[in-house]
Amino acid sequence: MDDLILALDFGGTKLTAAMVARSDVLAGGREWLAAQRIFSPADADARIDISTMVALGRQILDGTEALSIGVSFGGPADYASGVVRRSDHVPGWENIPLQQLLEDEFGAPVRLDNDANVAALGEQQFGAGIGYQDLLYITVSTGVGGGWILDGQPWRGRDGMAGEIGHCVIDPSGPLCLCGKRGCVERYASGPYMAQDAQQWLEQAPERGGILRELSREASISAEMVAEAAQKGDDLAAEILKRGAWALGVGIGNAANVMNPSLFVLGGGVTKAGELWWETVGRVARETALNDMVFDIAGAALGDDAPLWGAVAMALTAE
Amino acid sequence: MDDLILALDFGGTKLTAAMVARSDVLAGGREWLAAQRIFSPADADARIDISTMVALGRQILDGTEALSIGVSFGGPADYASGVVRRSDHVPGWENIPLQQLLEDEFGAPVRLDNDANVAALGEQQFGAGIGYQDLLYITVSTGVGGGWILDGQPWRGRDGMAGEIGHCVIDPSGPLCLCGKRGCVERYASGPYMAQDAQQWLEQAPERGGILRELSREASISAEMVAEAAQKGDDLAAEILKRGAWALGVGIGNAANVMNPSLFVLGGGVTKAGELWWETVGRVARETALNDMVFDIAGAALGDDAPLWGAVAMALTAE
Repeated sequence: MDDLILALDFGGTKLTAAMVARSDVLAGGREWLAAQRIFSPADADARIDISTMVALGRQILDGTEALSIGVSFGGPADYASGVVRRSDHVPGWENIPLQQLLEDEFGAPVRLDNDANVAALGEQQFGAGIGYQDLLYITVSTGVGGGWILDGQPWRGRDGMAGEIGHCVIDPSGPLCLCGKRGCVERYASGPYMAQDAQQWLEQAPERGGILRELSREASISAEMVAEAAQKGDDLAAEILKRGAWALGVGIGNAANVMNPSLFVLGGGVTKAGELWWETVGRVARETALNDMVFDIAGAALGDDAPLWGAVAMALTAE
Repeated sequence: MDDLILALDFGGTKLTAAMVARSDVLAGGREWLAAQRIFSPADADARIDISTMVALGRQILDGTEALSIGVSFGGPADYASGVVRRSDHVPGWENIPLQQLLEDEFGAPVRLDNDANVAALGEQQFGAGIGYQDLLYITVSTGVGGGWILDGQPWRGRDGMAGEIGHCVIDPSGPLCLCGKRGCVERYASGPYMAQDAQQWLEQAPERGGILRELSREASISAEMVAEAAQKGDDLAAEILKRGAWALGVGIGNAANVMNPSLFVLGGGVTKAGELWWETVGRVARETALNDMVFDIAGAALGDDAPLWGAVAMALTAE
């Protein structure tokens, strides 16, 4: 019936396949006909992930054929060539021609891009970015990364690497980031770094952070715990959270100065941290941007499904 | 003969009109048929500047008609509406419909944009950016500003304000910038701020900066003097110059992370500061950008004529 679109999401830890009817989507439908998500085994490599994903796809296609396929990959991947550069989570992904492999497997055209670009497209076409022609989608989670939509199309840059707002330096004397530089946005704003800093601050200031101390008695500190403690009035947790939000706000304000986009869409686990976090991000972003820069900041609307819906949008262009 | 293109450059302190033959430019010619530049009187306002520019244009057209006209304006101006928002140098420019005024005067189609965008286009089509489809042109002069070319076209942003790399914050505890924030790129890297900082450092460190002290005996310190002293081995001058170059390098590296462009073109008076400045800018930009980001850095090729050549490029699209 030539109407089925397959959306595949290779996350760092999970693999998701979902399916929509093209005609349904074009008519405004936003329901998955079928979807399957499984966690990638701890010892997975690229070969295992690919076979698993192909099996998932076949399962939900259930003997029918896909008209076209969109793929989100959680790591550097090149849209133009359809080749994955590498994964920072799973070994064996160096220079894998994933687009070609999947086209051979499924006999349908495949479009592939990294998850930030794909999620940006998903939010612009089906989520918080509807009605906007230019936006930066930022995921604030284990890392901080982003994807651009300019004039309604993904802007990928020379090497498909655009959107790395997490590794913009905002304080050259700041703490050391995994990337080797000091004071990157991600170094303050990501979930793991907020948790790590909270742990360290607790050790250094025995008189502070009572509520966070209590919450972390039986498990190691997480960003969720920091947010919860801040909401309950813990001053140390609030300071960590505001510092992360401040860093992201400076990054957003700087990006506004450089690109003057209409909208920033924020997604990822850290965006669930509550009002203090959102208020700080918005205030600092506006303080950092010149007064002439007018922009909106919105929460992502599609959650974990943003890459899948972006994959659908890409697949719609692949016919 | 319907072949003359007029290029007009409203600078902060000077007005320039120049003329080319369209057929000549399309055949690869890069010579002005005529050009006139005059300094704007100190008490000029928008009305005086416009009349003066119209007179300059008529003079070089010498009774013939322009096929189309391109205009570079030294301040916020909106390409889509053809309206100047304001000038930071000359009073009376608030919301002036300059495109319409010039179309009425000359009876030819006019295209108008701010000088950074126009210069970026000039360098991309006729200068250091030939062969590149995406670049950020940065002028490092009285201020630090920029203009983007993406996919071969100017990227102006929501309000025509994109490219304000000079007001990206790179050190929140840095010195206060005129814009009200601390630690902007421009606060370290512009000519006047380098001169101001050098003056202040000389006062605070009587044992340093002997060469710069000598050079500035009979005139107040300028950025050119700082560069000259640094080249002659003055340690204080070298430190000021490296600090400005470092700030610009961080700004460029951050812009590379966010946009992954192919090329940065650097123009403006400060780029004449010598090898130490260029080496520092390039090194810091590459240290700040992720390893995946590949980009070139080149000096502007058109000098003060970049806005005029960009105006020609715009006029070519206005027929």
